Amino acid sequence: MPASVRVLGVDPGLTRCGVGVIDVERRTPTLVHVEVVRSEPDEAIEQRLLRIGRGVEAAIDEHRPDAIALERVFAQANLRSVMGVAQISGIVLRAAAERGIPVAMLTPSEVKAAVTGYGAADKQQVAEMVRRLLRLDAAPKPADAADALAIAIAEGWRTRVPRASTSTPAQQAWAAAEAAARSRR
Amino acid sequence: MPASVRVLGVDPGLTRCGVGVIDVERRTPTLVHVEVVRSEPDEAIEQRLLRIGRGVEAAIDEHRPDAIALERVFAQANLRSVMGVAQISGIVLRAAAERGIPVAMLTPSEVKAAVTGYGAADKQQVAEMVRRLLRLDAAPKPADAADALAIAIAEGWRTRVPRASTSTPAQQAWAAAEAAARSRR
Repeated sequence: MPASVRVLGVDPGLTRCGVGVIDVERRTPTLVHVEVVRSEPDEAIEQRLLRIGRGVEAAIDEHRPDAIALERVFAQANLRSVMGVAQISGIVLRAAAERGIPVAMLTPSEVKAAVTGYGAADKQQVAEMVRRLLRLDAAPKPADAADALAIAIAEGWRTRVPRASTSTPAQQAWAAAEAAARSRR
Repeated sequence: MPASVRVLGVDPGLTRCGVGVIDVERRTPTLVHVEVVRSEPDEAIEQRLLRIGRGVEAAIDEHRPDAIALERVFAQANLRSVMGVAQISGIVLRAAAERGIPVAMLTPSEVKAAVTGYGAADKQQVAEMVRRLLRLDAAPKPADAADALAIAIAEGWRTRVPRASTSTPAQQAWAAAEAAARSRR
Protein backbone atom coordinates (compact mmCIF):
# COMPACT_ATOMS: atom_id res chain seq x y z
CA MET A 1 0.00 0.00 0.00
CA PRO A 2 1.39 3.41 -0.91
CA ALA A 3 2.22 5.70 2.01
CA SER A 4 -0.30 8.27 0.83
CA VAL A 5 -3.39 8.16 -1.33
CA ARG A 6 -5.16 11.05 -2.99
CA VAL A 7 -8.96 11.08 -3.10
CA LEU A 8 -11.19 13.50 -4.99
CA GLY A 9 -14.71 13.84 -3.57
CA VAL A 10 -17.67 15.25 -5.45
CA ASP A 11 -20.92 16.54 -3.97
CA PRO A 12 -22.90 16.60 -7.21
CA GLY A 13 -25.24 19.51 -7.84
CA LEU A 14 -26.39 21.50 -10.83
CA THR A 15 -26.17 24.95 -9.24
CA ARG A 16 -23.24 24.24 -6.90
CA CYS A 17 -21.06 21.15 -7.33
CA GLY A 18 -18.54 20.68 -4.53
CA VAL A 19 -15.13 19.25 -5.41
CA GLY A 20 -12.61 18.42 -2.68
CA VAL A 21 -9.21 16.78 -2.93
CA ILE A 22 -7.31 15.33 0.04
CA ASP A 23 -4.25 13.22 0.64
CA VAL A 24 -4.61 10.52 3.27
CA GLU A 25 -1.40 9.33 4.91
CA ARG A 26 -2.04 6.56 7.39
CA ARG A 27 -5.33 7.87 8.68
CA THR A 28 -4.51 11.56 8.56
CA PRO A 29 -6.22 13.54 5.79
CA THR A 30 -4.63 16.73 4.46
CA LEU A 31 -6.35 19.35 2.30
CA VAL A 32 -5.04 19.57 -1.26
CA HIS A 33 -7.77 21.53 -3.04
CA VAL A 34 -11.37 22.54 -2.63
CA GLU A 35 -13.71 24.43 -4.94
CA VAL A 36 -17.33 24.78 -5.91
CA VAL A 37 -18.12 24.57 -9.62
CA ARG A 38 -21.23 26.61 -10.37
CA SER A 39 -23.75 27.02 -13.13
CA GLU A 40 -26.59 29.49 -13.47
CA PRO A 41 -30.21 28.33 -13.15
CA ASP A 42 -31.18 30.36 -16.23
CA GLU A 43 -28.71 28.55 -18.49
CA ALA A 44 -29.91 25.67 -20.69
CA ILE A 45 -29.51 22.32 -18.94
CA GLU A 46 -26.99 21.05 -21.50
CA GLN A 47 -24.81 24.15 -20.99
CA ARG A 48 -24.98 23.69 -17.22
CA LEU A 49 -23.94 20.05 -17.50
CA LEU A 50 -21.10 20.99 -19.84
CA ARG A 51 -19.86 23.67 -17.45
CA ILE A 52 -20.01 21.43 -14.37
CA GLY A 53 -18.54 18.46 -16.22
CA ARG A 54 -15.60 20.49 -17.51
CA GLY A 55 -14.96 21.96 -14.06
CA VAL A 56 -14.89 18.57 -12.33
CA GLU A 57 -12.75 17.06 -15.08
CA ALA A 58 -10.29 19.97 -14.86
CA ALA A 59 -9.89 19.26 -11.13
CA ILE A 60 -9.40 15.53 -11.83
CA ASP A 61 -6.77 16.24 -14.49
CA GLU A 62 -4.95 18.80 -12.36
CA HIS A 63 -4.84 16.78 -9.13
CA ARG A 64 -4.73 13.23 -10.55
CA PRO A 65 -6.46 11.42 -7.68
CA ASP A 66 -5.97 7.70 -6.96
CA ALA A 67 -9.70 7.41 -6.31
CA ILE A 68 -12.88 9.40 -6.88
CA ALA A 69 -15.93 9.31 -4.62
CA LEU A 70 -19.32 10.90 -5.01
CA GLU A 71 -22.51 11.02 -3.08
CA ARG A 72 -25.05 8.46 -4.15
CA VAL A 73 -28.27 9.91 -5.51
CA PHE A 74 -31.47 9.24 -3.65
CA ALA A 75 -35.09 9.97 -4.31
CA GLN A 76 -36.00 13.28 -2.75
CA ALA A 77 -39.08 15.45 -2.71
CA ASN A 78 -37.82 17.51 -5.64
CA LEU A 79 -37.63 15.17 -8.64
CA ARG A 80 -36.16 17.85 -10.88
CA SER A 81 -33.25 18.37 -8.51
CA VAL A 82 -32.70 14.59 -8.29
CA MET A 83 -32.53 14.43 -12.08
CA GLY A 84 -29.88 17.15 -12.22
CA VAL A 85 -27.83 15.37 -9.57
CA ALA A 86 -28.17 12.05 -11.42
CA GLN A 87 -27.14 13.68 -14.71
CA ILE A 88 -24.01 15.14 -13.12
CA SER A 89 -23.19 11.88 -11.36
CA GLY A 90 -23.39 10.12 -14.73
CA ILE A 91 -20.90 12.57 -16.20
CA VAL A 92 -18.51 12.19 -13.24
CA LEU A 93 -18.75 8.38 -13.22
CA ARG A 94 -18.00 8.28 -16.93
CA ALA A 95 -15.08 10.72 -16.52
CA ALA A 96 -13.59 8.44 -13.86
CA ALA A 97 -14.01 5.34 -16.02
CA GLU A 98 -12.50 7.13 -19.02
CA ARG A 99 -9.37 7.88 -16.97
CA GLY A 100 -9.17 4.45 -15.34
CA ILE A 101 -9.63 5.92 -11.86
CA PRO A 102 -11.61 3.78 -9.38
CA VAL A 103 -14.84 5.47 -8.38
CA ALA A 104 -17.17 4.83 -5.46
CA MET A 105 -20.60 6.07 -4.49
CA LEU A 106 -21.27 6.65 -0.81
CA THR A 107 -24.59 7.32 0.85
CA PRO A 108 -24.97 10.55 2.85
CA SER A 109 -25.28 8.56 6.07
CA GLU A 110 -22.09 6.60 5.31
CA VAL A 111 -20.25 9.88 4.88
CA LYS A 112 -21.72 11.42 8.03
CA ALA A 113 -21.04 8.31 10.09
CA ALA A 114 -17.45 8.16 8.86
CA VAL A 115 -16.52 11.76 9.64
CA THR A 116 -18.67 12.51 12.69
CA GLY A 117 -19.37 9.04 14.07
CA TYR A 118 -23.09 9.79 13.70
CA GLY A 119 -25.06 8.94 10.54
CA ALA A 120 -27.70 11.62 11.12
CA ALA A 121 -25.27 14.47 11.78
CA ASP A 122 -26.33 17.86 10.40
CA LYS A 123 -24.39 19.90 7.85
CA GLN A 124 -22.83 22.09 10.51
CA GLN A 125 -21.48 19.09 12.44
CA VAL A 126 -20.04 17.65 9.22
CA ALA A 127 -18.40 20.97 8.30
CA GLU A 128 -16.95 21.33 11.80
CA MET A 129 -15.48 17.80 11.74
CA VAL A 130 -14.02 18.43 8.29
CA ARG A 131 -12.41 21.59 9.70
CA ARG A 132 -10.92 19.67 12.65
CA LEU A 133 -9.79 16.67 10.63
CA LEU A 134 -8.05 18.86 8.05
CA ARG A 135 -6.65 21.20 10.75
CA LEU A 136 -8.16 24.31 9.16
CA ASP A 137 -8.85 27.64 10.84
CA ALA A 138 -12.39 27.82 9.49
CA ALA A 139 -14.83 25.30 8.03
CA PRO A 140 -14.86 25.29 4.21
CA LYS A 141 -17.85 27.17 2.78
CA PRO A 142 -20.35 26.78 1.24
CA ALA A 143 -21.67 23.48 2.60
CA ASP A 144 -21.10 21.83 -0.80
CA ALA A 145 -17.35 22.36 -0.37
CA ALA A 146 -17.31 20.83 3.12
CA ASP A 147 -19.51 17.95 1.91
CA ALA A 148 -17.14 17.17 -0.96
CA LEU A 149 -14.22 17.02 1.47
CA ALA A 150 -16.25 14.84 3.86
CA ILE A 151 -16.97 12.44 1.00
CA ALA A 152 -13.27 12.33 0.10
CA ILE A 153 -12.26 11.70 3.72
CA ALA A 154 -14.87 8.95 4.13
CA GLU A 155 -13.69 7.23 0.97
CA GLY A 156 -10.03 7.66 1.90
CA TRP A 157 -10.66 5.91 5.19
CA ARG A 158 -13.15 3.40 3.88
CA THR A 159 -11.15 1.65 1.25
CA ARG A 160 -7.55 2.61 1.67
CA VAL A 161 -6.49 2.31 5.25
CA PRO A 162 -7.21 -0.54 7.62
CA ARG A 163 -8.70 0.45 10.92
CA ALA A 164 -6.28 0.23 13.83
CA SER A 165 -8.64 0.99 16.71
CA THR A 166 -12.26 0.34 17.56
CA SER A 167 -13.22 4.01 17.18
CA THR A 168 -12.47 6.08 14.11
CA PRO A 169 -10.22 9.16 14.28
CA ALA A 170 -13.38 11.18 13.71
CA GLN A 171 -15.03 9.55 16.70
CA GLN A 172 -11.90 10.13 18.77
CA ALA A 173 -11.67 13.77 17.65
CA TRP A 174 -15.37 14.31 18.29
CA ALA A 175 -15.10 12.75 21.73
CA ALA A 176 -12.09 14.95 22.48
CA ALA A 177 -13.96 18.04 21.28
CA GLU A 178 -16.95 17.17 23.43
CA ALA A 179 -14.69 16.60 26.42
CA ALA A 180 -13.00 19.96 25.79
CA ALA A 181 -16.36 21.72 25.50
CA ARG A 182 -17.50 20.11 28.77
CA SER A 183 -14.30 21.19 30.54
CA ARG A 184 -14.90 24.80 29.44
CA ARG A 185 -18.33 24.97 31.04
CA MET B 1 -34.06 26.95 -44.04
CA PRO B 2 -31.88 24.19 -45.51
CA ALA B 3 -33.64 21.74 -47.80
CA SER B 4 -32.88 18.82 -45.50
CA VAL B 5 -32.08 18.54 -41.81
CA ARG B 6 -30.48 15.60 -40.03
CA VAL B 7 -31.74 14.63 -36.57
CA LEU B 8 -30.23 12.09 -34.19
CA GLY B 9 -32.68 10.63 -31.67
CA VAL B 10 -31.69 8.84 -28.49
CA ASP B 11 -33.86 6.53 -26.41
CA PRO B 12 -31.65 6.53 -23.29
CA GLY B 13 -31.19 3.27 -21.44
CA LEU B 14 -28.43 1.58 -19.50
CA THR B 15 -28.89 -1.91 -20.94
CA ARG B 16 -30.10 -0.90 -24.40
CA CYS B 17 -29.73 2.67 -25.66
CA GLY B 18 -31.44 3.28 -29.00
CA VAL B 19 -29.78 5.66 -31.46
CA GLY B 20 -31.55 6.63 -34.69
CA VAL B 21 -30.53 9.11 -37.37
CA ILE B 22 -32.86 10.48 -40.03
CA ASP B 23 -32.85 13.16 -42.68
CA VAL B 24 -36.04 15.21 -42.99
CA GLU B 25 -36.66 16.86 -46.34
CA ARG B 26 -39.80 18.97 -46.30
CA ARG B 27 -41.81 16.65 -44.08
CA THR B 28 -40.48 13.35 -45.39
CA PRO B 29 -38.11 11.49 -43.07
CA THR B 30 -35.53 9.08 -44.47
CA LEU B 31 -33.54 6.53 -42.48
CA VAL B 32 -29.80 7.23 -42.25
CA HIS B 33 -28.68 4.99 -39.40
CA VAL B 34 -30.09 3.02 -36.50
CA GLU B 35 -28.38 1.03 -33.78
CA VAL B 36 -28.72 -0.08 -30.21
CA VAL B 37 -25.72 0.54 -27.95
CA ARG B 38 -25.65 -2.05 -25.20
CA SER B 39 -23.98 -2.63 -21.87
CA GLU B 40 -24.07 -5.63 -19.61
CA PRO B 41 -25.94 -5.50 -16.30
CA ASP B 42 -23.01 -7.17 -14.52
CA GLU B 43 -20.57 -4.45 -15.50
CA ALA B 44 -19.76 -1.64 -13.06
CA ILE B 45 -22.04 1.37 -13.55
CA GLU B 46 -19.17 3.65 -14.57
CA GLN B 47 -18.05 1.19 -17.25
CA ARG B 48 -21.62 0.94 -18.55
CA LEU B 49 -21.91 4.72 -18.76
CA LEU B 50 -18.56 4.95 -20.52
CA ARG B 51 -19.58 2.30 -23.05
CA ILE B 52 -22.96 3.87 -23.81
CA GLY B 53 -21.52 7.39 -23.87
CA ARG B 54 -18.80 6.41 -26.32
CA GLY B 55 -21.30 4.61 -28.54
CA VAL B 56 -23.68 7.56 -28.75
CA GLU B 57 -20.83 10.01 -29.30
CA ALA B 58 -19.40 7.84 -32.08
CA ALA B 59 -22.78 7.98 -33.85
CA ILE B 60 -22.92 11.77 -33.38
CA ASP B 61 -19.43 12.22 -34.77
CA GLU B 62 -20.02 9.88 -37.70
CA HIS B 63 -23.39 11.28 -38.77
CA ARG B 64 -22.99 14.95 -37.69
CA PRO B 65 -26.64 15.72 -37.01
CA ASP B 66 -28.05 19.27 -37.12
CA ALA B 67 -30.06 18.50 -33.99
CA ILE B 68 -30.19 15.88 -31.24
CA ALA B 69 -33.33 14.82 -29.40
CA LEU B 70 -33.80 12.51 -26.46
CA GLU B 71 -36.63 11.25 -24.39
CA ARG B 72 -37.23 13.23 -21.23
CA VAL B 73 -36.80 11.25 -18.05
CA PHE B 74 -39.79 10.75 -15.83
CA ALA B 75 -40.32 9.26 -12.43
CA GLN B 76 -41.20 5.62 -12.79
CA ALA B 77 -41.81 2.80 -10.42
CA ASN B 78 -38.22 1.64 -10.69
CA LEU B 79 -36.04 4.38 -9.23
CA ARG B 80 -32.82 2.59 -10.09
CA SER B 81 -33.74 2.43 -13.76
CA VAL B 82 -34.72 6.13 -13.74
CA MET B 83 -31.31 6.98 -12.30
CA GLY B 84 -29.52 5.07 -15.07
CA VAL B 85 -31.61 6.84 -17.72
CA ALA B 86 -30.92 10.23 -16.09
CA GLN B 87 -27.19 9.50 -15.95
CA ILE B 88 -27.11 8.64 -19.65
CA SER B 89 -29.23 11.65 -20.57
CA GLY B 90 -26.72 13.85 -18.72
CA ILE B 91 -23.89 12.39 -20.77
CA VAL B 92 -25.78 12.87 -24.06
CA LEU B 93 -26.87 16.44 -23.21
CA ARG B 94 -23.30 17.33 -22.34
CA ALA B 95 -21.98 15.70 -25.54
CA ALA B 96 -24.41 17.80 -27.59
CA ALA B 97 -23.42 21.02 -25.81
CA GLU B 98 -19.74 20.20 -26.25
CA ARG B 99 -20.26 19.92 -30.01
CA GLY B 100 -22.51 22.99 -30.29
CA ILE B 101 -25.43 20.87 -31.53
CA PRO B 102 -28.92 21.98 -30.41
CA VAL B 103 -30.54 19.38 -28.19
CA ALA B 104 -34.17 18.90 -27.19
CA MET B 105 -35.95 16.69 -24.70
CA LEU B 106 -39.34 15.33 -25.69
CA THR B 107 -41.86 13.59 -23.49
CA PRO B 108 -42.96 10.08 -24.50
CA SER B 109 -46.47 11.35 -25.22
CA GLU B 110 -45.15 14.16 -27.44
CA VAL B 111 -43.26 11.56 -29.45
CA LYS B 112 -46.22 9.18 -29.68
CA ALA B 113 -48.62 11.98 -30.61
CA ALA B 114 -46.26 13.24 -33.31
CA VAL B 115 -45.70 9.91 -35.06
CA THR B 116 -49.02 8.13 -34.49
CA GLY B 117 -51.38 11.05 -33.84
CA TYR B 118 -52.21 9.44 -30.48
CA GLY B 119 -50.29 10.30 -27.28
CA ALA B 120 -51.06 6.98 -25.60
CA ALA B 121 -50.06 4.75 -28.52
CA ASP B 122 -48.37 1.48 -27.59
CA LYS B 123 -44.86 0.45 -28.61
CA GLN B 124 -46.12 -1.69 -31.49
CA GLN B 125 -48.13 1.20 -32.97
CA VAL B 126 -45.10 3.47 -32.72
CA ALA B 127 -42.85 0.90 -34.38
CA GLU B 128 -45.35 0.33 -37.17
CA MET B 129 -45.69 4.06 -37.88
CA VAL B 130 -41.90 4.42 -37.89
CA ARG B 131 -41.77 1.61 -40.45
CA ARG B 132 -44.37 3.29 -42.67
CA LEU B 133 -42.93 6.79 -42.34
CA LEU B 134 -39.43 5.59 -43.24
CA ARG B 135 -40.74 3.27 -45.96
CA LEU B 136 -39.06 0.18 -44.46
CA ASP B 137 -39.97 -3.45 -45.11
CA ALA B 138 -40.00 -4.28 -41.41
CA ALA B 139 -40.19 -2.27 -38.21
CA PRO B 140 -36.79 -1.64 -36.62
CA LYS B 141 -36.08 -3.92 -33.66
CA PRO B 142 -35.72 -3.94 -30.74
CA ALA B 143 -38.27 -1.37 -29.55
CA ASP B 144 -35.43 0.91 -28.40
CA ALA B 145 -34.33 1.30 -32.03
CA ALA B 146 -37.83 2.18 -33.24
CA ASP B 147 -38.28 4.56 -30.29
CA ALA B 148 -35.04 6.39 -31.11
CA LEU B 149 -36.22 6.88 -34.69
CA ALA B 150 -39.65 8.03 -33.50
CA ILE B 151 -37.95 10.64 -31.26
CA ALA B 152 -35.84 11.82 -34.21
CA ILE B 153 -38.89 12.07 -36.48
CA ALA B 154 -40.91 13.95 -33.85
CA GLU B 155 -38.09 16.43 -33.33
CA GLY B 156 -37.49 16.80 -37.06
CA TRP B 157 -41.13 17.74 -37.55
CA ARG B 158 -41.49 19.76 -34.38
CA THR B 159 -38.83 22.36 -34.81
CA ARG B 160 -37.63 22.23 -38.36
CA VAL B 161 -40.51 22.17 -40.74
CA PRO B 162 -43.63 24.38 -40.63
CA ARG B 163 -46.89 22.52 -40.79
CA ALA B 164 -48.68 22.80 -44.10
CA SER B 165 -51.92 21.01 -43.31
CA THR B 166 -54.18 20.59 -40.31
CA SER B 167 -53.30 16.92 -39.84
CA THR B 168 -49.75 15.65 -39.51
CA PRO B 169 -48.24 13.29 -42.08
CA ALA B 170 -48.41 10.65 -39.36
CA GLN B 171 -52.10 11.25 -38.89
CA GLN B 172 -52.63 11.13 -42.63
CA ALA B 173 -50.58 7.94 -42.94
CA TRP B 174 -52.32 6.36 -39.97
CA ALA B 175 -55.73 7.28 -41.36
CA ALA B 176 -54.73 5.81 -44.72
CA ALA B 177 -53.49 2.63 -43.04
CA GLU B 178 -56.73 2.28 -41.10
CA ALA B 179 -58.75 2.84 -44.25
CA ALA B 180 -56.67 0.20 -46.05
CA ALA B 181 -57.15 -2.25 -43.19
CA ARG B 182 -60.90 -1.64 -43.23
CA SER B 183 -61.05 -2.13 -47.00
CA ARG B 184 -59.29 -5.53 -46.64
CA ARG B 185 -61.87 -6.86 -44.20
